[in-house]
Amino acid sequence: MKIGIYGYGNLGRGVETAVWHNPDMETAAVFTRRDPKDVQTYGAPVYSADQATDFKDKIDVMIICGGSATDLPEMTPMLAKNFNIVDSFDTHAKIPEHFAKTDKAAKDSGHIALICAGWDPGLFSLARLYFSSVMPVCTTYTFWGKGVSQGHSDAIRRIEGVTNARQYTLPVPEALERVRAGENPTFTPREKHRRDCYVSVAEGADKERIKHEIITMPAYFADYDTTVTFVSEDEIIKNHSALPHGGHVLCSCRTGQHNENLQKAEFTLSLESNPEFTASVITAGARAMHKMHARGITGCKTMLDIPPADLSALSDEELRKSLL
Amino acid sequence: MKIGIYGYGNLGRGVETAVWHNPDMETAAVFTRRDPKDVQTYGAPVYSADQATDFKDKIDVMIICGGSATDLPEMTPMLAKNFNIVDSFDTHAKIPEHFAKTDKAAKDSGHIALICAGWDPGLFSLARLYFSSVMPVCTTYTFWGKGVSQGHSDAIRRIEGVTNARQYTLPVPEALERVRAGENPTFTPREKHRRDCYVSVAEGADKERIKHEIITMPAYFADYDTTVTFVSEDEIIKNHSALPHGGHVLCSCRTGQHNENLQKAEFTLSLESNPEFTASVITAGARAMHKMHARGITGCKTMLDIPPADLSALSDEELRKSLL
Repeated sequence: MKIGIYGYGNLGRGVETAVWHNPDMETAAVFTRRDPKDVQTYGAPVYSADQATDFKDKIDVMIICGGSATDLPEMTPMLAKNFNIVDSFDTHAKIPEHFAKTDKAAKDSGHIALICAGWDPGLFSLARLYFSSVMPVCTTYTFWGKGVSQGHSDAIRRIEGVTNARQYTLPVPEALERVRAGENPTFTPREKHRRDCYVSVAEGADKERIKHEIITMPAYFADYDTTVTFVSEDEIIKNHSALPHGGHVLCSCRTGQHNENLQKAEFTLSLESNPEFTASVITAGARAMHKMHARGITGCKTMLDIPPADLSALSDEELRKSLL
Repeated sequence: MKIGIYGYGNLGRGVETAVWHNPDMETAAVFTRRDPKDVQTYGAPVYSADQATDFKDKIDVMIICGGSATDLPEMTPMLAKNFNIVDSFDTHAKIPEHFAKTDKAAKDSGHIALICAGWDPGLFSLARLYFSSVMPVCTTYTFWGKGVSQGHSDAIRRIEGVTNARQYTLPVPEALERVRAGENPTFTPREKHRRDCYVSVAEGADKERIKHEIITMPAYFADYDTTVTFVSEDEIIKNHSALPHGGHVLCSCRTGQHNENLQKAEFTLSLESNPEFTASVITAGARAMHKMHARGITGCKTMLDIPPADLSALSDEELRKSLL
């Protein structure tokens, strides 16, 4: 399988290294909107994004490593006209629109497209689906963290006087324990997650005003218990430059004629690098697209539509023997 | 969807109650090899197993609730000639043979068959598949317990002088912690699981001889640290009649150019009733068979082959909206 990587930031680099671990794949080309001479990969050849169409018969799956806010809504439908593609679109409210546009582009051109690949949306969505299908009358809970939210970190950085910031989302331990105990509770956002912020400011900046602006910021922080710790910019770079994340999907239900038996399921991810793990998932997703396209399937898919065996390099016989 | 239940023990009863929780299904008939007059369901009509063929156009999916040792190898290929079926076959070494026979029967008659449905094989197999596809160079570990092993309990009951027995399989906590720490260790069976046995004996039976026979029994106990606790038969019935089970599937890998980032995944089930949870899973599997058969798919499948969305009663649009 020849993989193309379209966009070469944290995620694109993660895909290039993830492909190393899959002997049935190789990175045929990296495409960039920068000057290709300025992009240093781990070994894959670099081309200008404008040249991508020249590779339409040389690449089996194009993995699009752009941002959900502005890149992917344009790039994914455009590239699906010439390639089987995978993206990691994660702007929840805009998924129906992104799905519809990509589905049309892929179907019209006879390609297949996997959108929203990764761990959430992605593996966590799958856990929610399996749990809610097996335990249909129960509530499925998702807790995130401890992890860095780039969106929340960016929101803090836009405040006047802030030079750098890192925001960690954390589950509230008591809430997690109540769910684990099978209580099926109802939570406010504040009861479920808290937010810890590490912030560096310009000399002479008004820390009280900045702290107030953070903890009262609507949508981002006002509905959560938020701590703000002022640190030097050096300390942010030294101690807070990693991008860990993870979380838990949980579900419990009662079975039996008198609901006497408590059944509990929990899926946990603990990731030291969010973009590298996302890259690992979407690389497996690229294999599934290649296999499904070979069976004549076209159009837009999500991980909820992929027969799990298609993610693996092993044959169905090997999978039944080694994993069932 | 009209569900048939073929065999009415713990698992069949669990399926009947699981169907209650799925408004798109109803149990149309229970089939038994006993005299139907002697079988008391929670409401579903009971027929003789001999009458099943009369229902071939009245049942969408037949769920076969027999034992893997002798029932399913006969029943599943036989019933797949007239019905879409689901079973929970779990004799690992015989899966290829069971698959081949069922596949032929289902393909020849234009039906679809799901074998090996449940949580292990089943949801745990899926976790092993997702983890090993996303983290291809890493080891996936499965720990079972705390839970009752019926096979091991039966083996103890066959010893002379034993009147009743219950065997619990438990993970060794230190082994679980080493895997959770990302060590990727190698284990002997003894290092990974231990076995606790509660045994009642006939009056005057030689407890030392019985204990020795248990802990030295090849395949079942000799390779494990095994404790034997002698209790009264009343105590076994009072305190050890439940069938809890569960366990953990874990995988960790390192990503990044220098393998610097540890990524960890864990899936845990904690079940107060093993047969009722298995019933919940295979009931969702029956829905998937109905949907896939409506798309013209025939032959033998496992949960590794089912597009996850097919397990759910929700439409693809609803799933994308609520779970992605």
